[in-house]
Amino acid sequence: MNDVIALTKTLINKKSITPDDAGCQILFKELLADIGFTNETMVFEDTTNLWSRKGTKQPVFCFAGHTDVVPTGPIDKWQSPPFEATEKDGFIFGRGAADMKASLAAMMVATRRFVEDYPAHKGSIAFLITSDEEGPFINGTTRVIDTLEERKEKIDYCIVGEPSSTNLTGDVIKNGRRGSLTGTLTVHGIQGHVAYPHLIKNPIHLVAPAISELAETVWDNGNAYFPATSMQISNIHAGTGATNVVPGSIEIVFNFRYSTEVTAEQLQQGVVDILDKHQLHYTIGWIKNGLPFITAEGSLIAASQEAIAETLGIDTTLSTAGGTSDGRFIAPTGAQVIELGPENNTIHKINECVNIENVKSLEKVYYAILVKLLS
Amino acid sequence: MNDVIALTKTLINKKSITPDDAGCQILFKELLADIGFTNETMVFEDTTNLWSRKGTKQPVFCFAGHTDVVPTGPIDKWQSPPFEATEKDGFIFGRGAADMKASLAAMMVATRRFVEDYPAHKGSIAFLITSDEEGPFINGTTRVIDTLEERKEKIDYCIVGEPSSTNLTGDVIKNGRRGSLTGTLTVHGIQGHVAYPHLIKNPIHLVAPAISELAETVWDNGNAYFPATSMQISNIHAGTGATNVVPGSIEIVFNFRYSTEVTAEQLQQGVVDILDKHQLHYTIGWIKNGLPFITAEGSLIAASQEAIAETLGIDTTLSTAGGTSDGRFIAPTGAQVIELGPENNTIHKINECVNIENVKSLEKVYYAILVKLLS
Ligand SMILES: [Zn+2]
Ligand SMILES: [Zn+2]
Repeated sequence: MNDVIALTKTLINKKSITPDDAGCQILFKELLADIGFTNETMVFEDTTNLWSRKGTKQPVFCFAGHTDVVPTGPIDKWQSPPFEATEKDGFIFGRGAADMKASLAAMMVATRRFVEDYPAHKGSIAFLITSDEEGPFINGTTRVIDTLEERKEKIDYCIVGEPSSTNLTGDVIKNGRRGSLTGTLTVHGIQGHVAYPHLIKNPIHLVAPAISELAETVWDNGNAYFPATSMQISNIHAGTGATNVVPGSIEIVFNFRYSTEVTAEQLQQGVVDILDKHQLHYTIGWIKNGLPFITAEGSLIAASQEAIAETLGIDTTLSTAGGTSDGRFIAPTGAQVIELGPENNTIHKINECVNIENVKSLEKVYYAILVKLLS
Repeated sequence: MNDVIALTKTLINKKSITPDDAGCQILFKELLADIGFTNETMVFEDTTNLWSRKGTKQPVFCFAGHTDVVPTGPIDKWQSPPFEATEKDGFIFGRGAADMKASLAAMMVATRRFVEDYPAHKGSIAFLITSDEEGPFINGTTRVIDTLEERKEKIDYCIVGEPSSTNLTGDVIKNGRRGSLTGTLTVHGIQGHVAYPHLIKNPIHLVAPAISELAETVWDNGNAYFPATSMQISNIHAGTGATNVVPGSIEIVFNFRYSTEVTAEQLQQGVVDILDKHQLHYTIGWIKNGLPFITAEGSLIAASQEAIAETLGIDTTLSTAGGTSDGRFIAPTGAQVIELGPENNTIHKINECVNIENVKSLEKVYYAILVKLLS
């Protein structure tokens, strides 16, 4: 299976909905063993992960990716069966086509080509493959990284295959991600019948000015790498349905996407200060979904930008926009981390697809980066 | 059954949860027929109502009440079975004891005593008894009143037996009720993922300043008969539970209890003005639960206050506080309407009870009012 398009299709045809790997990793183990990699399957709870490495020296160049895909949604809205890769108009259609089975195929084919062309390459090449990136991300990359850190096995350069591009492969590289912080707030009042307003403390009325202030607050202005920190209330609930009873409390869930200009602790304090200023009686809980990370510069970014320019003739924009990725678990080890994959405009949607030219380009770029860093 | 306490207990023992009358009206028809009343049962859908009248002349004095009771709540929290009237420490315990089976018994016993003592009384006496006051109040008093109006049968004085008192029977008379107006508001935004705030219009953020303004608005200052109009948001809901998705809309339910200083139309316009000022994109629906009514003065109030002072030796406060009652359906016909019944501190609660002395007092007061108006 030398062809990146054929391998992409083979992977799409495996119905690997999180956390089911559906045999993708078994195939990769065979392909990697063939070219001298040592495979190590790491099972944590319901999740199967693969750590595969060729070579023992530094620097360690790692391709990181996930075999799992999100559910299909209403299957009758798909123009072709989501788990039967279908070529049409220059695209491959199927769930996971762009996120991220094409990237996995490009990593595999580029690596094989590189080790055949440069059998005496420098350093080591590794694959870190999980099947829970789209799920709770508890038993995937984060636990593999914990295991590597325990035995002091260090990654120097890591390309995560998330679909980072807008139109053409490489037009955008993600060189960091914002942090994510979720707060769950309960504001307490005094329940009562609407006919007796003097006996009521209406928590909906009480919290409204604080919500306004939270929504208007400028948390920071971002920096060269990050847009300004953003807060969004995603859920608000109070009341039993009875129209004549004021509830005793209101539940609010909100999420910060934050830059490296603030810390999670500063945001938490800022929220608490506003709630206290409005003299609310409340309880609050926090979940730190991920710290922000940034790979500001270094050999990996330089090699990637050069490889894209030389191979495809286009400029690359560095970006930290969008959601979280497993890069947040790898960057804290000190590795240089970027995300580089195909276009992302159809990911997680009905009729997900990937441009065939972009997949071929991606294989060429991955190869060129390997050449620049390890030959 | 000459004893008001015995009749109260007999009524409590009938399990008449809305709209089931459980035979209360059959008993009343017998008792009223015995003293010369003409009974007319009016069945509308699931609700049985009784219109019973003695005499054909004006003025028509009407006792209005309901035989239905609210559900018991957790039955194991009752100190005695809710549908077995139980005497203890000078009280009768049971569901409906105060709301309003004691009043019905007092109406019946007082009326019998009056027609026996004054067989040639002036005018007419009527009973308007429903069994859906605690429910949707669609097929009860309002439809009986419609029927009477169609045939030009007019009530001059009406005492609704709702438990109006605080401690002693007659310490408070309700001589009106506030209006009730419910609004259901949906504010529209643009749904999206928290990671892409520039693509979102968060309806929770957008509506918060309008909620603050609605909550702070002084709608009126009330008047001699009514406290200031009050607005309470009872329900607010937005969000699917997913913490990273901002919902496309938010649902809000609110209720006005309003005085005769404003109209429902003015309140609706006031809300719309605030929503428009905040440039919200919204849809809104309204339910007029009841118009405000007031019996400011007249023979009925005068007779009631005198009867209470002479019989019980206490002063009476006029009040329009509290929830709605069926008085709102009777007052628009031009009748003088008051609510006069026993103490209301346990109504709709576990271990509902009524003070035995208050029930005996109520029978005496009802009798004295009949004497003042019809002898
Ligand atoms: Zn992905
Ligand atoms: Zn009642």
